[in-house]
Amino acid sequence: MPYVMVQIPKTPAPSSPAPRSVPTSADVARLAGVSRATVSYVLNNASAVRISEPTRRRVHEAAKELGYVPHAAARSLRAGHSRMVLMPAPSFPVGPLYSQFISELQWALGRLDYTVVQYGSVGVHGDEAARAWAELRPVAVLVPGPGSLGPQGVTVLKRSGARAVVTLGPHSVEGAHALLMDHGAVGHCAGSHLFDRGRRRIGVVVPEEEGLESFSLPRLDGVRRALHGSDATVTELPLAYEEESAARLAARWRELDLDAVFAYNDEYAMLLMRALQDGGVRVPEDTAVIGADDLMLGRLLRPRLSTVHIELPSGRDLAELVDRAVRNPGAAPETHKVLGATVVHRESS
Amino acid sequence: MPYVMVQIPKTPAPSSPAPRSVPTSADVARLAGVSRATVSYVLNNASAVRISEPTRRRVHEAAKELGYVPHAAARSLRAGHSRMVLMPAPSFPVGPLYSQFISELQWALGRLDYTVVQYGSVGVHGDEAARAWAELRPVAVLVPGPGSLGPQGVTVLKRSGARAVVTLGPHSVEGAHALLMDHGAVGHCAGSHLFDRGRRRIGVVVPEEEGLESFSLPRLDGVRRALHGSDATVTELPLAYEEESAARLAARWRELDLDAVFAYNDEYAMLLMRALQDGGVRVPEDTAVIGADDLMLGRLLRPRLSTVHIELPSGRDLAELVDRAVRNPGAAPETHKVLGATVVHRESS
Repeated sequence: MPYVMVQIPKTPAPSSPAPRSVPTSADVARLAGVSRATVSYVLNNASAVRISEPTRRRVHEAAKELGYVPHAAARSLRAGHSRMVLMPAPSFPVGPLYSQFISELQWALGRLDYTVVQYGSVGVHGDEAARAWAELRPVAVLVPGPGSLGPQGVTVLKRSGARAVVTLGPHSVEGAHALLMDHGAVGHCAGSHLFDRGRRRIGVVVPEEEGLESFSLPRLDGVRRALHGSDATVTELPLAYEEESAARLAARWRELDLDAVFAYNDEYAMLLMRALQDGGVRVPEDTAVIGADDLMLGRLLRPRLSTVHIELPSGRDLAELVDRAVRNPGAAPETHKVLGATVVHRESS
Repeated sequence: MPYVMVQIPKTPAPSSPAPRSVPTSADVARLAGVSRATVSYVLNNASAVRISEPTRRRVHEAAKELGYVPHAAARSLRAGHSRMVLMPAPSFPVGPLYSQFISELQWALGRLDYTVVQYGSVGVHGDEAARAWAELRPVAVLVPGPGSLGPQGVTVLKRSGARAVVTLGPHSVEGAHALLMDHGAVGHCAGSHLFDRGRRRIGVVVPEEEGLESFSLPRLDGVRRALHGSDATVTELPLAYEEESAARLAARWRELDLDAVFAYNDEYAMLLMRALQDGGVRVPEDTAVIGADDLMLGRLLRPRLSTVHIELPSGRDLAELVDRAVRNPGAAPETHKVLGATVVHRESS
């Protein structure tokens, strides 16, 4: 059991009356007239130990009366690990696709009796972040989105008791399981589609909002790769998610002389398409437009928005990978390719 | 210090080789040639204790070499509390407005040196949920959205060491600070606006998706209150967030004989407006449409979507309330009204 450190509080201690003392399992044992061990067995549902129903009831009633709650931290100190799966909370604006993915994953891990906590790492990066996560002693860490976690961070996490580290991103990290999500495939798909539709002067929107580079740059690169060696050109188009920014870009459209645009995702595509239409550019006749994410709202526009449908790994599959890795921490890291991308051709391209 | 309970693992222990033993602060002390107390002072940045720079450096180097990370759980056991602000992860589909609110709050609490963890409470409700949260020994708990936390749950949290419990919802809960968010005000606003525009046969969309009732029913009720005592009628319109559902509703439009609709939020409004237009209903001539949330996409439609702009509390203000409450746990619970709602009148109403 690790040495217990004294924390020096960073904020002054409150001057107001302290809250009532926290009840312990010893208090529960006293009130129920049983041993501490019995309290522990009952409240942890230890099935290996036979305890009579009336005794169980007495313990539960005493715990309830005192408002006693076992301490997860104490449990994990003793057990060496917890049932906590830690995920850094994303630092980028979350879209509906990601929000749904997280809900599904939480549900699937919950079914396997894990608790998911999303850890807000404001202004903490790389191995420093790994150290902060390690302080909570999670049994597994799941890093979604290309992060700054390196092999050093993986080591810190494992040495502090994490049985599995899983990354979702473009590259694998030494020592961690990797679900490879190559956002380049999204761009590749879009670029090939526009080329096949006969377009040769292709713009690619790159959002100006911070935190999206790790998605937008691989997508841009994917378009470049799709068109490599052909007679098509690729023009990078910075765009902020604001009407004014879209109007400014649309005002330069004739001079840019583009016949197609892959607009990063459906939201930027909707924004730009409206600005182009307001500026008298016909979609798709003058300029083809394609987004990504396959949001329902894209189908409500006229012309209906073409898009790249992105298939994320299912929450259930990912939860099973985490569970497998936790049960078998000595196994070699697994690597899976998980991002599927297919064009949904509608009217705008 | 609470009694440390032995956790009986619910899953079988892995048969594979166990990970290397976790380094302790005693190991760091040995390697650096200092006492454990010195390690603790250095790694916790205790400014009250003078320790020479070379010693500090030796401790940091030893900790780094061994991969030692202080245990937050052990710290909080000893200190009686942590810097963790726990928020239950929402069980409803998160919209862009909420997603932005959470990011801002996380950032603001991070600046005050708190760590926000979002706790995924799948299938756990009411006081049972409170007990699960209490196991992590958060210093504060922030429950966004109308939840099932009752006075009993607040007591459980406080007795386990939480210094502040703050709810964001329609009602206050005994013992907790309350930020009252009355979604009825959103409906009231929309209903009054439609009435003022001369509409009298008013439909209100109620999403069929689960988890949204706690927002949608107060909004419906707000419309009813706005029109109470007038000659206007209110018709409840169940709608799923799917094109087929919207098309079915639009097909019944003539028979419903409505001249206006408040569509829950902008996303449902965009969906329904498109279905109405496709069905030959003129917006706003035949039917006025208004949404809520003031999403940017609503401005891209033609006609531009009228909406209710919702003002949530700023992350900074909320973070300050949490901090104040943590520093002064004996203070009487505060209650604030925090939701502002104003109509943004565009072309669809």
